[in-house]
Amino acid sequence: MPHIAVPAPVPGIRGLMAAKPASGRRLSELAEQLLRGPSSLTVAERELIAAYVSYLNGTPYCTGSHTAAAAHALGGDYALVRAVQRDPATASVSERMRALLAIAGKVRGNARAVTEQDIAVARAAGADDEAVHDTVLVAAAFCMFNRYVDGLAAITPEDPEVYDGIGATLVADGYLPQGRPSSV
Amino acid sequence: MPHIAVPAPVPGIRGLMAAKPASGRRLSELAEQLLRGPSSLTVAERELIAAYVSYLNGTPYCTGSHTAAAAHALGGDYALVRAVQRDPATASVSERMRALLAIAGKVRGNARAVTEQDIAVARAAGADDEAVHDTVLVAAAFCMFNRYVDGLAAITPEDPEVYDGIGATLVADGYLPQGRPSSV
Repeated sequence: MPHIAVPAPVPGIRGLMAAKPASGRRLSELAEQLLRGPSSLTVAERELIAAYVSYLNGTPYCTGSHTAAAAHALGGDYALVRAVQRDPATASVSERMRALLAIAGKVRGNARAVTEQDIAVARAAGADDEAVHDTVLVAAAFCMFNRYVDGLAAITPEDPEVYDGIGATLVADGYLPQGRPSSV
Repeated sequence: MPHIAVPAPVPGIRGLMAAKPASGRRLSELAEQLLRGPSSLTVAERELIAAYVSYLNGTPYCTGSHTAAAAHALGGDYALVRAVQRDPATASVSERMRALLAIAGKVRGNARAVTEQDIAVARAAGADDEAVHDTVLVAAAFCMFNRYVDGLAAITPEDPEVYDGIGATLVADGYLPQGRPSSV
């Protein structure tokens, strides 16, 4: 049960955002910009970073939702998302993505551990400034979203089908619910 | 030197946000809502949480800026902000604020460590649902802002006077620069 009253029965971060819509709207708008706005990273690449960071942070609601979103963005490839979560170094992703996931993993822990060498490896594999910027900011943002969900003990469904549905909806509609721009 | 090109000579998070204004605007709007929007926490209380979390995360730019902002919001009381950073349990703050700072500290680390008991202590000292919600979200948000600044190695001034000026400006003008609503 969440630590604060949320409009029943809204699970996860959406329940928390509905408890204070003024900040919920700002969080939704930020997520839409970071995960769906213009970027040199694809939607699948950004959702993969979100799924990886949420998994490392151990937040079941966000891990379930973004694992499914990344898989749907990749045409249904759950196996690849899970391989990245186990170890980006051995997963079947591009060298550029491997280097960016390594940076995302450091940002999640001690972000000052990101070195010039980490950035040089990503650049040599084709990452531009925007890809580096967006990787760091998406990883940092999920350190916020995960803590918001964990710190208030958001409602966390256990049925994997629920997350598959959330992921499909996030890929189809993004983070601003259809017909209700800027709403939670 | 930052890991990406930023418009010289803009220091700290503002330099990073200027490098990608579309996301910078969303971050500014979120900060304005969380730190200046309607809340059962005062501006000084929210800036104190920001200063405490940034200090624990070891991010000099954010620590300097929000230590100064909290101090200015408290009428110039830098000593109280530094006492909170050293140990909220012994600092001269209300029991309610002491309980909320303890929650903020847990959110910064492993947010799942926040217990029903932590919440009960805060409620007994007068915290309402909104105070609990905003404490968790402000603490979580600074885990994002700090990582964004650290992960991209933002320009970090060393002169304490610079931070005193930033803090005074943040208290006077908020997070949306005057006359330029929604800009970085």
